[in-house]
Amino acid sequence: MKVLVINTGSSSIKYQLYEMPESRGLAKGVVERIAEEVSKLAHYFAGKTHAVETKVQTHEEGMELILNTLVSKEVGVIEDISAIGAVGHRVVHGGEEFTGSVVIDDEVIASIEKFAGLAPLHNPHNLTGIKASQAKLPNIKQVACFDTAFHTTIPEVAYMYALPYDLYEKYRIRRYGFHGTSHRYVARRAAVLMGKDKYDINAITCHLGNGCSVTAVRQGKSVDTSMGFTPLEGVVMGTRSGDFDPAILFYLTDKGYDVKSLNALCNNKSGLLGISGISNDMRNLEELARKGNTRAKLAIDIFCYHIKKYIGAYSAVLDTTDAVVFTGGIGENSVWVREQICADLTQTGVELDSTANEAALAKEADISTAESKVRIFVIPTDEEAAIAHDTYELAG
Amino acid sequence: MKVLVINTGSSSIKYQLYEMPESRGLAKGVVERIAEEVSKLAHYFAGKTHAVETKVQTHEEGMELILNTLVSKEVGVIEDISAIGAVGHRVVHGGEEFTGSVVIDDEVIASIEKFAGLAPLHNPHNLTGIKASQAKLPNIKQVACFDTAFHTTIPEVAYMYALPYDLYEKYRIRRYGFHGTSHRYVARRAAVLMGKDKYDINAITCHLGNGCSVTAVRQGKSVDTSMGFTPLEGVVMGTRSGDFDPAILFYLTDKGYDVKSLNALCNNKSGLLGISGISNDMRNLEELARKGNTRAKLAIDIFCYHIKKYIGAYSAVLDTTDAVVFTGGIGENSVWVREQICADLTQTGVELDSTANEAALAKEADISTAESKVRIFVIPTDEEAAIAHDTYELAG
Repeated sequence: MKVLVINTGSSSIKYQLYEMPESRGLAKGVVERIAEEVSKLAHYFAGKTHAVETKVQTHEEGMELILNTLVSKEVGVIEDISAIGAVGHRVVHGGEEFTGSVVIDDEVIASIEKFAGLAPLHNPHNLTGIKASQAKLPNIKQVACFDTAFHTTIPEVAYMYALPYDLYEKYRIRRYGFHGTSHRYVARRAAVLMGKDKYDINAITCHLGNGCSVTAVRQGKSVDTSMGFTPLEGVVMGTRSGDFDPAILFYLTDKGYDVKSLNALCNNKSGLLGISGISNDMRNLEELARKGNTRAKLAIDIFCYHIKKYIGAYSAVLDTTDAVVFTGGIGENSVWVREQICADLTQTGVELDSTANEAALAKEADISTAESKVRIFVIPTDEEAAIAHDTYELAG
Repeated sequence: MKVLVINTGSSSIKYQLYEMPESRGLAKGVVERIAEEVSKLAHYFAGKTHAVETKVQTHEEGMELILNTLVSKEVGVIEDISAIGAVGHRVVHGGEEFTGSVVIDDEVIASIEKFAGLAPLHNPHNLTGIKASQAKLPNIKQVACFDTAFHTTIPEVAYMYALPYDLYEKYRIRRYGFHGTSHRYVARRAAVLMGKDKYDINAITCHLGNGCSVTAVRQGKSVDTSMGFTPLEGVVMGTRSGDFDPAILFYLTDKGYDVKSLNALCNNKSGLLGISGISNDMRNLEELARKGNTRAKLAIDIFCYHIKKYIGAYSAVLDTTDAVVFTGGIGENSVWVREQICADLTQTGVELDSTANEAALAKEADISTAESKVRIFVIPTDEEAAIAHDTYELAG
């Protein structure tokens, strides 16, 4: 059975077609700049690339372009769209309701709409993608996979903030956490690599990409995570601040900043970009820091320091940790960042093997010393494969 | 030499008179409700209490009442105010400038005024106290001891937020930390208890009172602390939230909250009070939780959970930890809280001895097991003695 995985943004649709249950990728690509003057399709199949500029006015037209591409004689990989057995959709926010992936029906759509207020930059677009997909593929099952679902096992003590309790009752203000599909995927891979059952591993998973989050996994389940009510909280990210004293916002309001500009400041002008003043890209910053740029160096130092603190905090939460896992663009590729995070963590039982670390680029590897009490893994994440897996399980 | 220690609030002056260098307390007390209808003096000396209601219009009148009391025939402890050799003042914010206590001169006063914007609820009152004291005792040295001073050794990687760098350049937005005099005092006592030099100890000090903060001390110096730009950040407190996703403030603004009410909400209606909905007093909450009140129990659980996470985070920062220290009203007295924080911290090397813990009430004690890699101490804090010490050193 072929499963199409869809990730819809405000002006883009990413897609990937899998042969299941083998999890073999047949084709993938992205339609970008939907509703702009010129839209773009980039399509990858059988080691080849097909790129076109065209005009795509709506997400539904985008879906049509994707399906036409998948069945095209020149660059397609299937004969007819009837070969697609199910569609899996990434949905950012599933609130407290969705503890796992679900087959989409009217009730599910109503819930995703309901949670739009909690993820105004994502859920409405995810929903647009679902509706476009339903319109074009009305006779097959559509599945929703939520970024928050893996974190619904977090206990009250970790998801409740020390704010007035009625804010939770009225507005459901609590820690939700994100990147759940990625944390789940790499935690399960780590269990496999250790020869353990997926519910028999305690791990600290570090998803370090453009957005970054760290998760404490006890017996295969998320018990705490650094992102909170929104993806702003936690460790330092490309342009997001992560943790800071919220009273700074009150102080800046007194200095004349309005709430809207503060929101943009924390989400788009902070993090690696804010500290360095130059770039939100770790590769650039490493290059600049090597050349002696002190602000680029400071950005990397603070980035690593925050993650080190979270690893320590979650070690205390878990008490016994089997593995620390690095994933995401930075986690999979930055030798420097992994080395600096793991330096001087002996008390926590974490000992990095520098040689193994240097060799581990975008591939699965154990980068801990033989003596290290805690395994350290690099595991490339694959959220699409996880969504395809869930979709196949529910629709197969 | 006799040293008078003064801690001035918006409508109160706390005082304590010491014989130095023995650090022997001769008398202490507080003038409260200054400028209200009825003001109160409570004075303690030689095991006795003297309480009066009177009318105190200004802080200068308050100082006069204190000095008159100290020399009074009935309840006084000195013959003449000339017996006082120096005055030590608690000042909350010393910015980046004051790395230790200093003799007060016009420049120091100008600096304390300059930092008033960073501590609007404290520095102006501290200054009022200094001026009242100077007016009444013009011929002796007045010393300022800053809550922030101990934390000026925190490195850039820990004091910088991942916000746009120019906020630091323009407004000095960074982590300052507070409770410094207390953290320093108990870290040095821990070194004494371990037979170590004060610059040869790595400790995690937990000041748990109405305000709460946790500090990482490396070789006797603060290298990180949970309070930040203001005392709002960090662990859960009586009415303050500690850490939460700052984006919650943006969300609540959309729901109609204004910035002023959000400031009050986070500082005065959150923390133990906010979660429990009943009380900010740990003793009350423990009693209620024992009777089955689930919200009181949740407040205690979240309080302990945050501190546990900070102990883990700072263990990672320090790599080697010699001691964890509990101080402040809750830290010195709550058997429950200490037990719960230290439970399941074996990986961090922290093992509590339950019997020793139960016996340690408001007195110095080692409450760790013989096997514990990390010593756990209860050490009653004494900020006034530390201020008297600094004052004596500078003015003696």
